[in-house]
Amino acid sequence: MPDHRSVPSAPTDLPVLRDPAGLPALPPIAEPGQPWQAIDTPALVLVLDAFERNLERMQQAADRAGVALRPHAKAHKCPDIALAQMTRGAVGICCQKVSEALPFLRAGIADIHISNEIAGPAKATLLARMARHARISVCVDAVVQVRALAEAAEREQSGLTVLVELDIGQGRCGVADADAALRLAERIAAQPRLSFGGLQAYHGGIQHVRDHAARREGAARAAERAGAVAARLAAAGAPCQVVTGGGSGSVEFDLASGVFTEIQPGSYVFMDGDYGSNARGDESAAQALRFEHSLFIATTVMSTAAQGQVVVDAGLKSMAVDSGLPWVWQHGGQPSGGQPSGGQRDRGTRSTRLAYVAANDEHGIVRPVPGAGGEKPALPQLGEPLWLVPGHCDPTLNLYDTLVGVRDGKVESLWPISARGLSR
Amino acid sequence: MPDHRSVPSAPTDLPVLRDPAGLPALPPIAEPGQPWQAIDTPALVLVLDAFERNLERMQQAADRAGVALRPHAKAHKCPDIALAQMTRGAVGICCQKVSEALPFLRAGIADIHISNEIAGPAKATLLARMARHARISVCVDAVVQVRALAEAAEREQSGLTVLVELDIGQGRCGVADADAALRLAERIAAQPRLSFGGLQAYHGGIQHVRDHAARREGAARAAERAGAVAARLAAAGAPCQVVTGGGSGSVEFDLASGVFTEIQPGSYVFMDGDYGSNARGDESAAQALRFEHSLFIATTVMSTAAQGQVVVDAGLKSMAVDSGLPWVWQHGGQPSGGQPSGGQRDRGTRSTRLAYVAANDEHGIVRPVPGAGGEKPALPQLGEPLWLVPGHCDPTLNLYDTLVGVRDGKVESLWPISARGLSR
Repeated sequence: MPDHRSVPSAPTDLPVLRDPAGLPALPPIAEPGQPWQAIDTPALVLVLDAFERNLERMQQAADRAGVALRPHAKAHKCPDIALAQMTRGAVGICCQKVSEALPFLRAGIADIHISNEIAGPAKATLLARMARHARISVCVDAVVQVRALAEAAEREQSGLTVLVELDIGQGRCGVADADAALRLAERIAAQPRLSFGGLQAYHGGIQHVRDHAARREGAARAAERAGAVAARLAAAGAPCQVVTGGGSGSVEFDLASGVFTEIQPGSYVFMDGDYGSNARGDESAAQALRFEHSLFIATTVMSTAAQGQVVVDAGLKSMAVDSGLPWVWQHGGQPSGGQPSGGQRDRGTRSTRLAYVAANDEHGIVRPVPGAGGEKPALPQLGEPLWLVPGHCDPTLNLYDTLVGVRDGKVESLWPISARGLSR
Repeated sequence: MPDHRSVPSAPTDLPVLRDPAGLPALPPIAEPGQPWQAIDTPALVLVLDAFERNLERMQQAADRAGVALRPHAKAHKCPDIALAQMTRGAVGICCQKVSEALPFLRAGIADIHISNEIAGPAKATLLARMARHARISVCVDAVVQVRALAEAAEREQSGLTVLVELDIGQGRCGVADADAALRLAERIAAQPRLSFGGLQAYHGGIQHVRDHAARREGAARAAERAGAVAARLAAAGAPCQVVTGGGSGSVEFDLASGVFTEIQPGSYVFMDGDYGSNARGDESAAQALRFEHSLFIATTVMSTAAQGQVVVDAGLKSMAVDSGLPWVWQHGGQPSGGQPSGGQRDRGTRSTRLAYVAANDEHGIVRPVPGAGGEKPALPQLGEPLWLVPGHCDPTLNLYDTLVGVRDGKVESLWPISARGLSR
């Protein structure tokens, strides 16, 4: 073999760079105006037409029902999306953590509800500090939390709206019954810098019940429970200005329940493999609430060395797999590579030819799905792009710094996912 | 109920902040010198004594075997840790992705191996640009990749070392046999700006075989395969300067194999629930390679409203669950809260009293484990801290921006996880 002495050998004194000046920086993942094929991978891509239709549909449904829409920002963690929701009529946003709210506050969102309990003086202090700039509400399910919030608001000379979280069947956080809710409401109202805002009532388990009728039944039972407690509180002189809850899986029932004054869905913006597996109801009735897959992981085939499979460059560090592996997206009858443009049936669908079957840290294995006659579809080529639908959108967003917006096959926007990693 | 008109109501014209000046910033997660209890949660914590012992043990084992240690930085993504490894004698680091290497290059690491194939001209260009500053090597398993690397090195006027990846049983990337490896080695050597560096031979599956003898057997078969191909290449005039591979689960066998010139373990720095479940071999023989749990997720009990469980503030956004849920860590016989100080038996262990049983996005459910007599251990209190051992360290690191170093119960360091999210 030829000997290439021109190729430099390893420096022996580490760390010593040959030329420390002019070190390369990370190039942008894409530039506005480029075709979608130019997006470096793995990348998180938002198909803007489908995304905007999802926003419109949810806002219209809430408006028709006369219920306030307060979308959950934990799904997107992206101020640009929150502003797009506010522009269409959202009354504010939800966050799940105190730190998560900071980038939204900075973007000018002036009404933020923390749909969760918090522990520790650091978080209460930050919350009370935020409340000097915006309307901030938060949940409690214990007296000690009320005390901590009152002390923080006093220290920071601000005011907090406090909701009592009610357990409506999930068995996670929240008080169990009206008596406990009333006791907490009275404790809140007794604090000069806190005001009792009403009830937080969310049942996460219902969101993922596959059968439509069973989901309707579960949502009805949960709403009934919330409604009964709200009535008890009102009768006891502690009316609930707000009963807030509901998610993308139950929202069609929550809107019709007459119990919720406010809904807080998050995933409808994107949809994901898990929500995409929920059965829909009757075509005409549910038409307004058909959301499209707008969120994709763009990946590239990086090895075709092994027989009967290809390896793509998106693995566990590019997707959450707690709700299952991603789907391969198929467009226009192509096994891969077509430009996905949303989740409507005529625009794209789950691939019946290719399946993402295993995720390693930075590798994904894609295999052909045999047809009815046993025939194996062709595999994509080395370097070919594939788009995936993540199994669970929220923790997948939490892995990326940038959301690449695509319209008509071209990159249009690069939105920072500013609240990524803010779990405190 | 009292009416508190002093509490401001929601602004109606959004987004309008009351006082946009002086918006609060995210407070630091901890300050050096603080006691460990002051760390805000969820937080990723490194127990520095255990961490340093892990580094020493691996370096000593490699030195004894006369094998180079090139730790895998995909596990930690943290330049401070890479420099600690280099200081102790590591010859360089591995990265799994091109973009992942950038923060390490910036920290002065001048010898970086990308233990993976890459696809697309953008990545090849960045790699060739990096090679103007440091010794950069990368893997191929197809001719088209060799061509792309040669073109990029020519464009950027730099030189790249190229290793042929050999599939030694994992069935993921890599050529299947010596003939294919030789063809690629010749293609590499024919390119004036590329040099053939040897073989990349890694078998991920072996790392997690629980039984010690079976793991030894699997590692032996894989090493044998690599050794046979290296011999064939040498006989054909393409000697392998480097045969690199091995992971934290197989490294004791890889070091003794006589095949590997270089090992690339990553997880030994931290250990995790998955690696912690691997059975160890004979006490005396394996003593040098007993690694300790040094990595913990600090979390806080945020709700105790439901019976028979507590809810903690670390969920799917604070841990990867692909290899199982985290363990609760127990120290000094306490059910919780003691200061964990590493993984040796006398310093801490997996809790037999508490189990983390379910992860939602931002919530974790912890329940008591009934004792032999059926008795239920006491649950931690609201606000109490718990430490968890994550199931899989690599993708868990990828969720955090900061690694909080603790020694003797006090915060000592705050290291940026600079390569977090760099999967391109």
